[in-house]
Amino acid sequence: MTLDDLLDPLLDASWKGIPHHAGALRRSAIGAQGWNVLRGDLPLPLAVIRRDALAGNLSWMQEFAANHGVGLAPHGKTTMSPQLFRRQLDAGAWGMTFATVGQLRAGVAAGARRCIIANQVFQAVDLRGISEMKRAHPDLAVAFLVDSMAQLDLVETWHAANADAPPFDVLLEIGVAGARTGCRTHEEALAVAQRLHASAATRLVGIECYEGLGATGKSEADIAYANALMERVRDVARACDAQQLFEGGEILLTAGGSAIFDLVADALKLALSRPVRGLLRSGCYVTHDHGTYHRFLGAVSARMGCGHGLHAAMEVWAAVQSCPEPGLAILSVGKRDISYDLELPQPIAFRPRDGRDTTQAPADWKITGLNDQHAYLRGTGAEHAALRVGDLVALGISHPCTTFDKWRWIPVVDAQYNVRDAIVTCF
Amino acid sequence: MTLDDLLDPLLDASWKGIPHHAGALRRSAIGAQGWNVLRGDLPLPLAVIRRDALAGNLSWMQEFAANHGVGLAPHGKTTMSPQLFRRQLDAGAWGMTFATVGQLRAGVAAGARRCIIANQVFQAVDLRGISEMKRAHPDLAVAFLVDSMAQLDLVETWHAANADAPPFDVLLEIGVAGARTGCRTHEEALAVAQRLHASAATRLVGIECYEGLGATGKSEADIAYANALMERVRDVARACDAQQLFEGGEILLTAGGSAIFDLVADALKLALSRPVRGLLRSGCYVTHDHGTYHRFLGAVSARMGCGHGLHAAMEVWAAVQSCPEPGLAILSVGKRDISYDLELPQPIAFRPRDGRDTTQAPADWKITGLNDQHAYLRGTGAEHAALRVGDLVALGISHPCTTFDKWRWIPVVDAQYNVRDAIVTCF
Repeated sequence: MTLDDLLDPLLDASWKGIPHHAGALRRSAIGAQGWNVLRGDLPLPLAVIRRDALAGNLSWMQEFAANHGVGLAPHGKTTMSPQLFRRQLDAGAWGMTFATVGQLRAGVAAGARRCIIANQVFQAVDLRGISEMKRAHPDLAVAFLVDSMAQLDLVETWHAANADAPPFDVLLEIGVAGARTGCRTHEEALAVAQRLHASAATRLVGIECYEGLGATGKSEADIAYANALMERVRDVARACDAQQLFEGGEILLTAGGSAIFDLVADALKLALSRPVRGLLRSGCYVTHDHGTYHRFLGAVSARMGCGHGLHAAMEVWAAVQSCPEPGLAILSVGKRDISYDLELPQPIAFRPRDGRDTTQAPADWKITGLNDQHAYLRGTGAEHAALRVGDLVALGISHPCTTFDKWRWIPVVDAQYNVRDAIVTCF
Repeated sequence: MTLDDLLDPLLDASWKGIPHHAGALRRSAIGAQGWNVLRGDLPLPLAVIRRDALAGNLSWMQEFAANHGVGLAPHGKTTMSPQLFRRQLDAGAWGMTFATVGQLRAGVAAGARRCIIANQVFQAVDLRGISEMKRAHPDLAVAFLVDSMAQLDLVETWHAANADAPPFDVLLEIGVAGARTGCRTHEEALAVAQRLHASAATRLVGIECYEGLGATGKSEADIAYANALMERVRDVARACDAQQLFEGGEILLTAGGSAIFDLVADALKLALSRPVRGLLRSGCYVTHDHGTYHRFLGAVSARMGCGHGLHAAMEVWAAVQSCPEPGLAILSVGKRDISYDLELPQPIAFRPRDGRDTTQAPADWKITGLNDQHAYLRGTGAEHAALRVGDLVALGISHPCTTFDKWRWIPVVDAQYNVRDAIVTCF
């Protein structure tokens, strides 16, 4: 896989959303086709990314991190788009985060050279993959998570059989009782850290936690939760430093930073015996959303006092295909096209087929269900009663990750929905 | 897009599930690599299709249709796999069904020449797409659904501006009150049929319904529901025939056939003034599942009295990555890898990392949640307490469509999980 293949692949009409009559064309040529989404140049449904919101989100989040004295290692799993990885790195990201070695591979091909795998790695095929990527790219740094002796046993077994491979950089994961991965107690964490330090297979380069699952969107609870977790992380970091267990030139201290990044950023700064690099691993900020993240960020705004600067950049456009009975319109969009894991999509805009201006979707419109290829748009008002086959409806999403993974490419549009650019994904 | 590109594309390690160290290779070469899933040759998670179950399902469903005197036009949206389309056609399918013009395009490229789009088509870009595909393949027949005058208006508008295009073959859709698309009443259906007959833009070639959404899995209710719906379909067909509204050489009469195919198949036979071809459009039978379809098919078996012949062919294998507290193991598989729309996956098999034999998953094991890249496997018994990092767990799925769409390729394995073949998808 060359960088050209990733950054500028050849697309054709077998890619959902490309006009059926289009010949094969490079991603970079899409912006020059003169396509407009509202004019019907592309088949629907179609996910689009709003160019201005995207650019604003990329710079605002980077600036937030810089203002708080921490780096950004955006989670690439959200978009899995090499073009967006490049935009994030160009915007000033310290590096990138991934969830699997396969994802890491796409990031490295896109130019990332400081990478975190925010996940346990232990399969031989994955350890070999990291090792070979590092050999191919001597300037590549990769750190993955360890949270148990059992995992370390597997890493050591592989390393013993591959003694010429350099040790793996690892982050000790601190977890929360009742939550996902990560050491539950200080003592357990220290014991693992000591073994990581002693092991020939690993180099302990920092401490990690993922706070996202415990966030509620209610500030009082979230502040108490984040403070308690971050204090545990800092205690473990202090103890590891006191015992000289860290082995890198700097110590990485990293939190998820997904929906309560303002509550963890400052805690990632710490005075230890060597430089500490705080890192947020936010992913969904790239496009933000109209649902879950929108609500969480409301709480962030209230706490910051100045409003956050993220704007929903992703929309999925669909057409009314049938108005079979009063109060019900069926849209040509379904589970194959849009997120449905956290909540159903919500109508945000309406474009009559007769070319009248796009307006905000009436408040009574609701998506009440999705099938594989259909959405149920219900409403009670006169605007719903006036819906006709061929009218266009834009849906806002909740949870960017699970809309990105339904598209192999997504057009980037201007305010008039002219297609100005395109990104591809590699899920 | 050539047939070679579709049937035998070049894969590399940028495709999730291909070993990181593999060079680019043709799909057809995968079976000769000597890979074994349980030996750790491929990174996990990994969806697999069991070869024997797949072959059995393909032939059993075809035989069921033949025994009932109807044809099979399998719904391609389930798998979107050109290799599986070919297998279905080779097994004797009359043709293929798709949900969009983009999907149709993949089917035509894979060799389908009798196609149903079981959906309303009306966008200019889609009508043009069908028209150009038919011009490129003079032996191609495509019929799509119409359920309203408003939709027909749009088809006529396009056709008037493209007068050299032959008329579109269409199926009149009969719907159910409170359900999805389709005419709700006999009178409405007849009125649309008369306009379809009169229109220069369309040729009415049959009647369609989709009964799947109303099925409950309870025979008494399903029999009454299916009988009532199919009688409506037959009444409309009889009335259209009496009024000589059909224009094809034969009349197509087609139902979804998803989970209560035994209740609709016989109703698709009807004596009219010209030959009637009954068609089932089942899709999920290809891999069947361990959840929703498994339960629905229990009712089919009971009604048939002889047992159905479908077997769950799809599994997703994952590794235990952390056992952070008693009763909880975290698996390396998440929303990016497996269905979660109808219900969560269920553990079906367990393979200890020490190479002991694979056994059935204990009854107390349950997947209680999924994140993007993680699954929560909870259990209460001694086997769960003995789980270790690196142990493998196989998950059964509920709803094949939403697992297929998470993989660009899927290995086909024998009983020992040797990779014998591979299919690719084009969502």
